[in-house]
Amino acid sequence: MKALVYHGPGKKSWEEKPNPVITETTDAVVKILKTTICGTDLHIMKGDVPEVTDGRILGHEGVGVIEEVGSSVSNFKKGDHVIISCITSCGKCEFCKKGMYSHCERGGWILGHMIDGTQAEYVRIPYADNSLYPIPVGSDEEALVMLSDILPTGFECGVLNGQVKPGDTIAIVGAGPVGMAALLTAQFYTPAEIIVIDQDDNRLEVAKTFGATHLINSASENALTKVMELTGGKGVDTAIEAVGVPATFELCEAIIAAGGHIANIGVHGKSVELHLETLWSRNITITTGLVDTVTTPMLLKTVQSKRIELKKLITHRFKLGQILQAYDTFEDAAKEKALKVILEN
Amino acid sequence: MKALVYHGPGKKSWEEKPNPVITETTDAVVKILKTTICGTDLHIMKGDVPEVTDGRILGHEGVGVIEEVGSSVSNFKKGDHVIISCITSCGKCEFCKKGMYSHCERGGWILGHMIDGTQAEYVRIPYADNSLYPIPVGSDEEALVMLSDILPTGFECGVLNGQVKPGDTIAIVGAGPVGMAALLTAQFYTPAEIIVIDQDDNRLEVAKTFGATHLINSASENALTKVMELTGGKGVDTAIEAVGVPATFELCEAIIAAGGHIANIGVHGKSVELHLETLWSRNITITTGLVDTVTTPMLLKTVQSKRIELKKLITHRFKLGQILQAYDTFEDAAKEKALKVILEN
Amino acid sequence: MKALVYHGPGKKSWEEKPNPVITETTDAVVKILKTTICGTDLHIMKGDVPEVTDGRILGHEGVGVIEEVGSSVSNFKKGDHVIISCITSCGKCEFCKKGMYSHCERGGWILGHMIDGTQAEYVRIPYADNSLYPIPVGSDEEALVMLSDILPTGFECGVLNGQVKPGDTIAIVGAGPVGMAALLTAQFYTPAEIIVIDQDDNRLEVAKTFGATHLINSASENALTKVMELTGGKGVDTAIEAVGVPATFELCEAIIAAGGHIANIGVHGKSVELHLETLWSRNITITTGLVDTVTTPMLLKTVQSKRIELKKLITHRFKLGQILQAYDTFEDAAKEKALKVILEN
Amino acid sequence: MKALVYHGPGKKSWEEKPNPVITETTDAVVKILKTTICGTDLHIMKGDVPEVTDGRILGHEGVGVIEEVGSSVSNFKKGDHVIISCITSCGKCEFCKKGMYSHCERGGWILGHMIDGTQAEYVRIPYADNSLYPIPVGSDEEALVMLSDILPTGFECGVLNGQVKPGDTIAIVGAGPVGMAALLTAQFYTPAEIIVIDQDDNRLEVAKTFGATHLINSASENALTKVMELTGGKGVDTAIEAVGVPATFELCEAIIAAGGHIANIGVHGKSVELHLETLWSRNITITTGLVDTVTTPMLLKTVQSKRIELKKLITHRFKLGQILQAYDTFEDAAKEKALKVILEN
Repeated sequence: MKALVYHGPGKKSWEEKPNPVITETTDAVVKILKTTICGTDLHIMKGDVPEVTDGRILGHEGVGVIEEVGSSVSNFKKGDHVIISCITSCGKCEFCKKGMYSHCERGGWILGHMIDGTQAEYVRIPYADNSLYPIPVGSDEEALVMLSDILPTGFECGVLNGQVKPGDTIAIVGAGPVGMAALLTAQFYTPAEIIVIDQDDNRLEVAKTFGATHLINSASENALTKVMELTGGKGVDTAIEAVGVPATFELCEAIIAAGGHIANIGVHGKSVELHLETLWSRNITITTGLVDTVTTPMLLKTVQSKRIELKKLITHRFKLGQILQAYDTFEDAAKEKALKVILEN
Repeated sequence: MKALVYHGPGKKSWEEKPNPVITETTDAVVKILKTTICGTDLHIMKGDVPEVTDGRILGHEGVGVIEEVGSSVSNFKKGDHVIISCITSCGKCEFCKKGMYSHCERGGWILGHMIDGTQAEYVRIPYADNSLYPIPVGSDEEALVMLSDILPTGFECGVLNGQVKPGDTIAIVGAGPVGMAALLTAQFYTPAEIIVIDQDDNRLEVAKTFGATHLINSASENALTKVMELTGGKGVDTAIEAVGVPATFELCEAIIAAGGHIANIGVHGKSVELHLETLWSRNITITTGLVDTVTTPMLLKTVQSKRIELKKLITHRFKLGQILQAYDTFEDAAKEKALKVILEN
Repeated sequence: MKALVYHGPGKKSWEEKPNPVITETTDAVVKILKTTICGTDLHIMKGDVPEVTDGRILGHEGVGVIEEVGSSVSNFKKGDHVIISCITSCGKCEFCKKGMYSHCERGGWILGHMIDGTQAEYVRIPYADNSLYPIPVGSDEEALVMLSDILPTGFECGVLNGQVKPGDTIAIVGAGPVGMAALLTAQFYTPAEIIVIDQDDNRLEVAKTFGATHLINSASENALTKVMELTGGKGVDTAIEAVGVPATFELCEAIIAAGGHIANIGVHGKSVELHLETLWSRNITITTGLVDTVTTPMLLKTVQSKRIELKKLITHRFKLGQILQAYDTFEDAAKEKALKVILEN
Repeated sequence: MKALVYHGPGKKSWEEKPNPVITETTDAVVKILKTTICGTDLHIMKGDVPEVTDGRILGHEGVGVIEEVGSSVSNFKKGDHVIISCITSCGKCEFCKKGMYSHCERGGWILGHMIDGTQAEYVRIPYADNSLYPIPVGSDEEALVMLSDILPTGFECGVLNGQVKPGDTIAIVGAGPVGMAALLTAQFYTPAEIIVIDQDDNRLEVAKTFGATHLINSASENALTKVMELTGGKGVDTAIEAVGVPATFELCEAIIAAGGHIANIGVHGKSVELHLETLWSRNITITTGLVDTVTTPMLLKTVQSKRIELKKLITHRFKLGQILQAYDTFEDAAKEKALKVILEN
């Protein structure tokens, strides 16, 4: 089969690889129908994720059709259409039993990371019964690629951890794909005001069409001042950090109201300054989290009932064989006005 | 009347002041029966709390007897014995209605801070119906002084925010009076293991008699290494910070298990380094908080039913007129083996 | 002033009464701008609420303008526009401090019940600081009459108690004003499917325009069979009872899924049969509740941000002097296609 | 092997049966070390559980040692000591993923019910990775038999569903083994007062040694009157029903405080009268539930750290071969003063 293979920082190729096979009774082999590229893949390509080694097939998102299942797999059979979760869950370790699939002792984020991933014609999925989700007949499968990672990430790490409630005023700092997923799913809880902060006017305009009520371009405006104006000096009930750099996290610290919640989604490469000298008495919570994908079935229901339009997140479409071109487009997201690119097998 | 009066950094005196009088219909004047000294009073004496001005009577803890009430006070009458909460609550602002009395728009921590406090023969209590709690007849009133501040502080900011649960392994960093209050009230939720960390062997020994299952003297041992040994490398489910300096907060960051909770109680004077480069994917929560004292009625029930022995926290007793000597003792807590000192009027 | 006065079962008149005056320092006198009639008022007129005595002015809903405040009132002043809560809260009893205003020891539902109510030109409101809510300038005050009672009732007793969550399938049994309020506010949490069950085709059609996804006329269809068809035999995650008779409550018992929630809003006059012989192992919750109105400020924010359109609930408008005619219309709700009638002073 | 076999209502024998074998890759065969008899087994013997058919080996509790595991089992190996959960969980159906193991689509309560159980020398356990729990070396295995069923049942269905909190006043109606388990585990949350109600003075005396603060013999006293006296007319915050007949459930309805929680544990054979005509406005919750055993790992930690003494629940011990005699003793529990009987293989 053909696959997108990592060969060390800056080097990747679309090349021939052996088809994956069942190695455990709990495995499934899935033929990819649609996959995509994640910001994390770009980090890997830069060499920021050193545990990814030469020869690894990248990708941890996608929908597909079951090609073969191991003898213990009982939820799926050949021919079933499935969503591939970015998180592999064994379903029987201490963490899985607590719903913390992200920290599964035998899984977690391993696809396109510790084992071969989804940017390929086929992929082997360990613990298939717990790591795949059935796609109802007649679904828009392209949209469901968003359920592999970014929708549960924005929802669980941003909206649920951030405890968004009806009537709240919230801020989302960063309008990339995950920030947009937080924006879409925050509306499940009907906040009154949603302030989106980014440095890219195009993304801000898109955020507006996705439901943002106020936009702040932090390259051209003082975001702190602006948020305080909008909130009568109180700050926001929830601040969702979806960038991953110190400046944006510290902005969240500055704009959070007494009693509020800072929900970190961003992948951080260095420490940040936590201003406990003011925050100690502000009765706030700060949360961090890798996605558990425990809400995937619920998110699927909201998609099926048309409570959310995921297609909005898709800006570009390619054939899987054009994946190198798709990487180029996604790497130049600002210029290309790209959010998510879909690769069709 | 006589009162302990602040006259700028390092200067205080026990001197004659006018008796307080009712100024609003919601006020009460309370004759102090017992009061105490808080670590915060020492901070004030050092000049660390600049909004406390020359002439202020200090103190925000105590029990007393109602001397007089304003015309709108309906929960209390002359002669009633009461616990004075360190937090004044109007009961009718946005924050009070949410149970965030700490941020009451007309109250909060004002006693011995913005208005005259309890280290005196009498004190005026604003919003008496919401800021005082009735003492059941026959109670041990000395013990109930602990309900003014340290018990709700340790419980709400440490134990409740830290989400202590049956079977958990928790660490309490700092075995001063508030850390001890967290230690006592954590046991309301039956954690399996309670690790107490301090630099004072005497306090650690006391912690043991209060229910600590493991003691670590961080002056003589590497606390991080020791906690990891005790927890099989997993870290603790809840880490309660009860000191207020960067080193102890960063210790909490290092010892927290995936999915765990860091509950800050300490009053911090400077920022700390938050290691998001590792914590971003650890699914933790961090909380801060000034006490709301919303649990005072519940804590009183646990005291009345002898579920907790507060007298353990009292190490020294003085007459109110000996308050300068009591300050000396409390300031030299390590040498004097002092936790809480009681001043009797 | 003129007022609607109860004179025993079946007897009421629009008659002259003395203007209310401030009797406690915590009172306000409010000039009514808009009021309405509640199903409860009809119950009172039938004699079902025997503690309502001859001479009582009815009504517990409305918006108005402050005419005068007692000396302890600090949240409001003459000329302020306010929402009158159906629940009077002293803000300082054990129940109020827990947010259970419905059971306030000095208040609760007393307006138009134990004391004179809002179907009059003026009304005295005890504990005004805690029982009135400020109306932002420029609001549509007619719509805000819905915040006095039916919106918080549908939301707190139906939606919050019923734990409605994104992706859920819920049923609302009874499409009167309170059922409709539950229907509108359930959507704050984005359930996937909302089944509304009633015997009146007109109300069902209205429910559809309010967001119901499935309609069942239980007079012409077997509601149990139909719900089971719609849910693949599983039943609903939440069943909200908004009628108050045994048959509708028992329907909720029959349609609830394992792990589901039955939220009772209906005012029941007799006991119901609870089928524990099947429900004991179904892991369900059942809740009851008189509204606390603790969510009124939050609901107001959702109205201000146009997240909900309350005007939809208003079907008829009258001058306050036409109140007897308004009662006739409301009593004949099915024929008149009435939900809420507005009376303007 | 030898096993206790059901042969229709009233008929059972200790007889030879074939040893169980692995039939699925997820199975384990466990050699029983200790087992016990449950009240449910007595119900089966009376013919109350018609789905139990002639030839079934009874029993759903026990500890044992792994004899053999299927090829997909990864948490256990031959020789491991394990607690057998009364609930079988596949770990991969919709209910298991939500932590509702009781309703597992492939398991639930099946041992000694739909498949052969633990009152035998060996037992086959389906989905062993999710249905067995490892026993730490050096544990008191006899005590851990209580973790198979009654401890999680009393804790999850009684204490957790009943939302027992520090300072609460609670009532436990029924002092059989499960009521006693609720009594022991309720103390994890430090209620102030624990009222135990039963008709057997011996059990009440035992309850006192287990931590009950007040005892009511409902055969000789009016339980409702007595509870109201003890609670100053308010009723209890939580009422736990651990009997399973209408009278005891209706007692719970009568003694519950406004805002309180009725947690049903009892297995009911007929419907009860729910007094909504008074309860509709009392803001209560009622819960039902078959145990999920999701808290077993946590309960094990509390046992390991000696926070609870389970041995107290064991009143009689027999060799497994004496099981018919053990049934006789357990059936005559009042006279024999029996709580739990241990059968040793």
